[in-house]
Amino acid sequence: MDEEIRARRAACTDTFLGNGLIRPRELLASIDPETDPDTYGEGGVVTELERHVAALLGKPAAVFLPSGTMAQAATLRVHADRRLSRTVVWHPYCHLDQHEGQAHQRLHQLIGRRTGDPEHLIALGDLEEVAEPVAALLLELPQRDLGGALPAWDDLVGQTQWARERGAAVHLDGARLWEASAGYERSPAEIAALFDTVYVSFYKGIGALPGCCVAGSAADVAAVREWRARLGGTLFALWPAAASALRLLDEGLAEMPARMRHARAIWDALAGVPEVRVVPDPPHTPMMHLLFAASAETFRENARRLAEETGLWVWPSGFATGDPDVVRAELSVGRATLRHKPEAIAEILSGLCM
Amino acid sequence: MDEEIRARRAACTDTFLGNGLIRPRELLASIDPETDPDTYGEGGVVTELERHVAALLGKPAAVFLPSGTMAQAATLRVHADRRLSRTVVWHPYCHLDQHEGQAHQRLHQLIGRRTGDPEHLIALGDLEEVAEPVAALLLELPQRDLGGALPAWDDLVGQTQWARERGAAVHLDGARLWEASAGYERSPAEIAALFDTVYVSFYKGIGALPGCCVAGSAADVAAVREWRARLGGTLFALWPAAASALRLLDEGLAEMPARMRHARAIWDALAGVPEVRVVPDPPHTPMMHLLFAASAETFRENARRLAEETGLWVWPSGFATGDPDVVRAELSVGRATLRHKPEAIAEILSGLCM
Repeated sequence: MDEEIRARRAACTDTFLGNGLIRPRELLASIDPETDPDTYGEGGVVTELERHVAALLGKPAAVFLPSGTMAQAATLRVHADRRLSRTVVWHPYCHLDQHEGQAHQRLHQLIGRRTGDPEHLIALGDLEEVAEPVAALLLELPQRDLGGALPAWDDLVGQTQWARERGAAVHLDGARLWEASAGYERSPAEIAALFDTVYVSFYKGIGALPGCCVAGSAADVAAVREWRARLGGTLFALWPAAASALRLLDEGLAEMPARMRHARAIWDALAGVPEVRVVPDPPHTPMMHLLFAASAETFRENARRLAEETGLWVWPSGFATGDPDVVRAELSVGRATLRHKPEAIAEILSGLCM
Repeated sequence: MDEEIRARRAACTDTFLGNGLIRPRELLASIDPETDPDTYGEGGVVTELERHVAALLGKPAAVFLPSGTMAQAATLRVHADRRLSRTVVWHPYCHLDQHEGQAHQRLHQLIGRRTGDPEHLIALGDLEEVAEPVAALLLELPQRDLGGALPAWDDLVGQTQWARERGAAVHLDGARLWEASAGYERSPAEIAALFDTVYVSFYKGIGALPGCCVAGSAADVAAVREWRARLGGTLFALWPAAASALRLLDEGLAEMPARMRHARAIWDALAGVPEVRVVPDPPHTPMMHLLFAASAETFRENARRLAEETGLWVWPSGFATGDPDVVRAELSVGRATLRHKPEAIAEILSGLCM
């Protein structure tokens, strides 16, 4: 984010994006000053959070890590180290494939095999084309870069069965598992039961300081813990982020059904706004992608004016699409979104196209 | 630390070890609630700290990272990636060799070559025995596991010259560079000038939340920044630890000469206490190792009684030595040590042997 945009955001007073313009003061307030600290990730609030998350996901164990990049590559490596193959099958928009500097390959000697069509969810037929031995299948629920789309439950079950039949591990990129839970109307544990290991995040939908957990068998979690140390994630004190997560997790999770309803209400309100389309249509989870009938410049200019004239923060620019007259943006439906009426949001979104 | 010892420490009210019984409340208070936040390590207080540390060390650039384990292995890899060799020459007690799960080898394909005798500092003669091409020479100042010993300045200069003559990079493990600066009576920048890259830490002598910087050329620092992302250290928000470091760094650094004098005064006070010997003798920096004429059990029992009866926290146990009647412990001289008179400290140390 360049300095001009940072300054503009800092001057804004409201937003309907995600959990809002969370300021340092607000995040610091999520850390109990009486927190029982850990020592190098052992004991205190870190152990408490790990136990809470393991129980929530119905797994024997969980380990807290500073980031998803560290967590998921290490977890997949643990699966590969127990198998003959280094190949991990994933969607072309998998976070590890797109946003992690090929760390899986450079640090862990994993091969990411892109499976299926970028603009669609993985289907069983895509998996059946894979002939080589596979160490793990990674599924992201919901698929963020497809607007938070979820496969039908039976498809999901079939895909995880495909992996198990081949002796491959099944790993869930659950960066937004809390949102997937609302979309499926199934508990996090019910979804997690299909997977050997589950990664969940605390700073996105939950709005805590950065941090995450990997849950799974005691053996897999212990091995991830070893890699956390080697990767430099076993800090002398992990308690600030863990305390923030523990404080905010349950209330964030409890709010997910309301966020799901709000997402559908926003979609409803956009039915009469042809210049803003929703992907997926209707939304599967408390998030969606929006396609604006606007050039990149028009969108950027409208967003700037909105921020400067009304103090309302939206995306400073949209993502390019294949169509120069259409830009795309991601709407996470969070605490802040709930404070805005769907009709008011639809009107502002429409205004970004004018 | 097991639960019994954690509970005992939590119940203590005083200590003369390092910066004291720092509680979460105190650490949280080191973070300004009005902190200008970063986004994925860019901007705000993180950039401010990086610039401050680069200037302090007289280097063109610096990058903030969550941990020394992440920082140093990545930095050495950057040096090796620019050279023909993967070999890094270091002391047998080098932190990467002893305490990082062989991450340098497993993640970065580096070979650590132990040079010289474990119980002595590296000497130029040790280096001259190295025949193979070398990617980097790592020197730790002070050498923590030798009680914070420093080589004579001219020896240090000669060793760094040896590396440069062979085209090897010279990296400083400056986890306690602030202490080395007090020991040499030279500025951090004067010491750093001998090295291509310098790692410094903020949670040990400075007493901030965990975090560190690597300073060096713009090119080396940019490459370390890429590895920070791949290793999972480019968190969405790095500002809490950076704000804590920026708040505490200058006052910690300013206190180092007083800590050095206090270390020498404690050594003086121990002159009449033959059952407690000091390594090195006299101390080179505001830290020292202590050799207690006590069995492991006697020491442990005395430390327990001291904590439970007086609320004074010391080491719950000593490190074993080759002699079953001698245990070893590390005394970091910090903010808390300054609040205790040398004679009083000597008396308590003596009591741990009885």
